Amino acid sequence: MTSNAPTRFVLPQERIPTAWYNALPDLPAPLPPPLHPGTKEPVGPADLAPLFPMALIEQEMTQAPTVEIPGAVIDILRLWRPTPLLRARRLEEALGTPARIYYKDESGSPSGSHKTNTAVAQAFYNRADGTKRIATETGAGQWGSALSFACAQFGIECKVYMVRASYEQKPYRRVLMETWGASVVPSPVDQPDHPGSLGTAISDAVRDAATRDDSHYALGSVLNHVLLHQTIIGLEAKEQLQLAGEDRPDVVIGCCGGGSNLGGIGLPFLTDEKVRLLAVEPSSCPTLTTGKFEYDFGDTAGMTPLLQMYTLGHDFVPPSIHAGGLRYHGDSPVISLLVQEGRMSAVAYPQGKTFEAAVQFARAEGKIPAPETGHAIRAAIDEALAAKESGEERVILFNYSGHGLLDLQAYDDFNHGRLIEA
Amino acid sequence: MTSNAPTRFVLPQERIPTAWYNALPDLPAPLPPPLHPGTKEPVGPADLAPLFPMALIEQEMTQAPTVEIPGAVIDILRLWRPTPLLRARRLEEALGTPARIYYKDESGSPSGSHKTNTAVAQAFYNRADGTKRIATETGAGQWGSALSFACAQFGIECKVYMVRASYEQKPYRRVLMETWGASVVPSPVDQPDHPGSLGTAISDAVRDAATRDDSHYALGSVLNHVLLHQTIIGLEAKEQLQLAGEDRPDVVIGCCGGGSNLGGIGLPFLTDEKVRLLAVEPSSCPTLTTGKFEYDFGDTAGMTPLLQMYTLGHDFVPPSIHAGGLRYHGDSPVISLLVQEGRMSAVAYPQGKTFEAAVQFARAEGKIPAPETGHAIRAAIDEALAAKESGEERVILFNYSGHGLLDLQAYDDFNHGRLIEA
Repeated sequence: MTSNAPTRFVLPQERIPTAWYNALPDLPAPLPPPLHPGTKEPVGPADLAPLFPMALIEQEMTQAPTVEIPGAVIDILRLWRPTPLLRARRLEEALGTPARIYYKDESGSPSGSHKTNTAVAQAFYNRADGTKRIATETGAGQWGSALSFACAQFGIECKVYMVRASYEQKPYRRVLMETWGASVVPSPVDQPDHPGSLGTAISDAVRDAATRDDSHYALGSVLNHVLLHQTIIGLEAKEQLQLAGEDRPDVVIGCCGGGSNLGGIGLPFLTDEKVRLLAVEPSSCPTLTTGKFEYDFGDTAGMTPLLQMYTLGHDFVPPSIHAGGLRYHGDSPVISLLVQEGRMSAVAYPQGKTFEAAVQFARAEGKIPAPETGHAIRAAIDEALAAKESGEERVILFNYSGHGLLDLQAYDDFNHGRLIEA
Repeated sequence: MTSNAPTRFVLPQERIPTAWYNALPDLPAPLPPPLHPGTKEPVGPADLAPLFPMALIEQEMTQAPTVEIPGAVIDILRLWRPTPLLRARRLEEALGTPARIYYKDESGSPSGSHKTNTAVAQAFYNRADGTKRIATETGAGQWGSALSFACAQFGIECKVYMVRASYEQKPYRRVLMETWGASVVPSPVDQPDHPGSLGTAISDAVRDAATRDDSHYALGSVLNHVLLHQTIIGLEAKEQLQLAGEDRPDVVIGCCGGGSNLGGIGLPFLTDEKVRLLAVEPSSCPTLTTGKFEYDFGDTAGMTPLLQMYTLGHDFVPPSIHAGGLRYHGDSPVISLLVQEGRMSAVAYPQGKTFEAAVQFARAEGKIPAPETGHAIRAAIDEALAAKESGEERVILFNYSGHGLLDLQAYDDFNHGRLIEA
């Protein structure tokens, strides 16, 4: 171990980005429009107005190269941003690789993941629009807790429909949400014996927001404006790689459920064709690696617009892996298009291999990753081992999307050989 | 809310302190020596050698004004250090106070608290001394998890005796320790029906280390060398307050169980007599506010040296409050002396008042504090309200010693009116 070797690259608070990067004008092909679930015609702003404030609808469709971040949003993001970029020297040493592995640490946000970046922006635009109340769904609770925190900052009432199985079995995320003042109920609300799914919870939340004048709906991934808000991750990482003396990463890696953390770290590198982009998903929910590229609903019940994306079918029910954030039948249209056009590649791993990587990372670098993040780490380690095999230097950047401190039961199962391979 | 007002003060990685501050030569009176539990004579280095490496024994007694931090220790500390200093503007606004509230955030370490600072140093010196194995005790698990992480960094085997009640009821800290490779057993080891206490666990760990040639013992608070290692907190905070444009804090606040986080943030301000130092403890374990200043054992069984300190008696059993890290009958001799000499004051709060403060903080600033940290926040809020009352500016600095993400059951109890006042 080289003593005092640079490890951690921080930006002063005044270097937080002041505009998001919009990938839409830089995509290799035009993004097919969302279609109305009833008419199958392209949806317009008016169709979305019952659910979202107009500023977010505009961001969903804008071709502007950047979008300014409001000062009131920056004020809150600076509670934890800019986030650090770390070089995983101890992991490199454990692997004996010539590769240089960097990770952008998004786990320091109040709710412990990147989700908070868009939650704050969405709460801000809703507040500016006069929204008094937001309804949303959450699976294991990452998104619901991020939005609960953000709503507390703007005095917005927050109602979270939480998949009943998680509500009953994993109470800690519920406690987080309640501590920030949100109201949390198990979904489906009208079937107390049903374990629920992301599909039922989306239906509950959309129905709630669509039928109340004082309420809007919010989504934590998939949509263009969500990925837009997450680009702050990659924009910061770019600057920090310069601090670390790197021209560019050879590959940028993110785990991929709906696609927002991957888009956040990856899209700012989109126009640099020397940078490979890599999506990592679970073998048990292999949307990008085995799904079809076609129009499909975002939810199980078919209430959302149809999106052109990779999909396993909107009635696909993934096994109950611990990486709950990656259990989604579809994918962001932007990410899907990049894979379809060959600008991004995708790889899938079984659960056990991702926990092996997560534990190796935890012992070397200290932090306990979220099971979702374990997927990105698995791919980063395999890239580093490939570089060792070929004897080449390689600069690897991955997004450390969240911590695993509320997922320790999964680690206990893994440590004691009880992890079921899904 | 002033847009873009400075909130978060970070130091670049190369500004991490390279030496710890030693308070011993600056104390207002000589520190009474520890006494041998059998002979009641002052202990010498040879008495401590079965338990600690000589470098730590020397640090326990040195009068040098500073002690250099080894490069290999800095290499690991830089995984999360320098830690940020934040101005709690949103909390100030919620309180309507003219006070400026700053907090040093130690919750970003791998194990989630300040404990990691000394764990890394202790593991390093043990490694340098050839120690292959370290035994320690842990109550709720903060210290055990910090040491488990540190031992993983130096390839040292780690055995943790965990209070049985916590081992059975709060498994997540055990999972953390095992994920970093430690072996964890419930204490007392020879009485499977006994719920255990910090006293029994210390006895188990000391007996283990004293009877094995390959093993040493490690303690997470109280001792001089532990406080020494924690001074990195206050040394960084001093620099960061300059960045924030403050000459000095008017008051420095830390919660106090054994005294190490309070010592860490407070001791570097010791020689500036314009700075008040304030210890905060639970009403249910009011060592500094109602205890006696006298020689007492560090453990229940009377196996440790006698220390001159504030104590409630070594057979005192505090109620089971959630702030497990503050449930200690005694206190650091350094902190005790400062209180005795009038250089530091102390205040005690009942549990409910500290959770009120923790939730107010969480809603304003986002982060969920450890129950221990909630005590420091309570005092900081009361200082800010006093400043409002008197209409004076006041600069308040407190140590955000750890996060509460593994203590969410306590928040659930508080949120739903089930918190029992101890």
